[in-house]
Amino acid sequence: MKRNILLTIEYDGTDFAGWQRQPEVRTIQGTLEEALTRVCRMPVQINGTSRTDAGVHALGQRASFSGDFGIPTDRLMLALNNMLDGGMNRRGKGSDVRVIGVEEMPEEFHARFDSKGKKYRYILDLSPSVDIFKRNYCYHVKTTLNLEAMRRGAEQIVGTHDFACFQAAGGNVRETTVRTIHSLEIIEVEAAGGKELHIEVSGDGFLYNMVRIIVGTLVDIGQGKIDAEQVKHIIDSCDRQNAGHTAPAQGLYLVEIYY
Amino acid sequence: MKRNILLTIEYDGTDFAGWQRQPEVRTIQGTLEEALTRVCRMPVQINGTSRTDAGVHALGQRASFSGDFGIPTDRLMLALNNMLDGGMNRRGKGSDVRVIGVEEMPEEFHARFDSKGKKYRYILDLSPSVDIFKRNYCYHVKTTLNLEAMRRGAEQIVGTHDFACFQAAGGNVRETTVRTIHSLEIIEVEAAGGKELHIEVSGDGFLYNMVRIIVGTLVDIGQGKIDAEQVKHIIDSCDRQNAGHTAPAQGLYLVEIYY
Repeated sequence: MKRNILLTIEYDGTDFAGWQRQPEVRTIQGTLEEALTRVCRMPVQINGTSRTDAGVHALGQRASFSGDFGIPTDRLMLALNNMLDGGMNRRGKGSDVRVIGVEEMPEEFHARFDSKGKKYRYILDLSPSVDIFKRNYCYHVKTTLNLEAMRRGAEQIVGTHDFACFQAAGGNVRETTVRTIHSLEIIEVEAAGGKELHIEVSGDGFLYNMVRIIVGTLVDIGQGKIDAEQVKHIIDSCDRQNAGHTAPAQGLYLVEIYY
Repeated sequence: MKRNILLTIEYDGTDFAGWQRQPEVRTIQGTLEEALTRVCRMPVQINGTSRTDAGVHALGQRASFSGDFGIPTDRLMLALNNMLDGGMNRRGKGSDVRVIGVEEMPEEFHARFDSKGKKYRYILDLSPSVDIFKRNYCYHVKTTLNLEAMRRGAEQIVGTHDFACFQAAGGNVRETTVRTIHSLEIIEVEAAGGKELHIEVSGDGFLYNMVRIIVGTLVDIGQGKIDAEQVKHIIDSCDRQNAGHTAPAQGLYLVEIYY
């Protein structure tokens, strides 16, 4: 009998050329499909919720696939993770992509089309000196940031707006650029290696590079390069040129998908 | 005038084929010599204190070189780190190797021959579930460890002994295998991702893979595979076969060199 399976996936994006399957390069989708094809003994293609870029991490990516295959649903997770760990075990390391949840869904369910929204986290490292062990996992900002100004800027982003100003070239231009940001929080965190700033954003959907451009704009506000009171006008202009820089990929984490 | 320079170096060993220069592969020595040769405008070869393996990290590796070059000693560190960062800046990341200290030493000083000892740290991740973001930085041990037994085993290793049992094949067989371990501590640490065990060992010198075999033996003791009271006999046997497994490279950190 055909089953429709929803996977929850975490990955360290450092050594992947992003989510989307591409010939000749290591991608998360490609790696998972290869493991699933072997475990399910049939060709499997998965539908991911978010096509994360190279270097972007995930704590709760989702993907679905359906098929009539042998292995029981409750054994799928262990079998998949054993398959994913397989190639790297010689060095005593686990895989950099793991399945952390497997659920059977109704036949018509689709991981991407049925998603109601997403939550991302962006981690800034604010310690004065570089921590080389964090270089793949956050964005190191040396200068002091005006958090109060950043929070005033963030307030103007929350809500339903045309966010064309926060979309990188390469996005789907035929699609509407109106999105709703439900919350945008700036949280100070005392981490082992020093002070971090976590920018947590949730919304009904995000344009191409939107979170990274929002973060870059907030950093520019924190450094006094952009006036916090200008954010409303930047959004109204619908012009990417008026927004801030694109924060690098390695600070970004896809935290959760809402259904 | 000829200067003799001592460098203090930190690196994330994940993407290096170890310290020692080799043709065709990326090594820490090779990367530093290339940067130094460009900054000093003369061919530079460095003498490292410890030839760390692929995947092993350093917080305080040391290396020396001498020459009559133009750049003042007090500008060398910044120039070197700018050179090392250069190639990776497009992704907004720093280098995975950085110079954190530069000192002028007497003419006859040699980083390796004059070293009086070293300190290493080995990090075990004891959290029940795998943290994929730690896979390059510690050794995940799922089973519960008997710390009291591990500490009794560790006590027998401290002191001056023939440590042939803790030497991997590939070491220099002509050299004596007697070493002095000054201290071997097992420290419980509450880290962000869960409980860790730090094994800190200092001594006057270490045989090939000695720290990793000591750690593997202590883990085997903690898991009940080796009896803690046997450690003295394992050392006396001078036989690698009687000691435990070799813990993987990615948990090992060269912390400090003593002069």
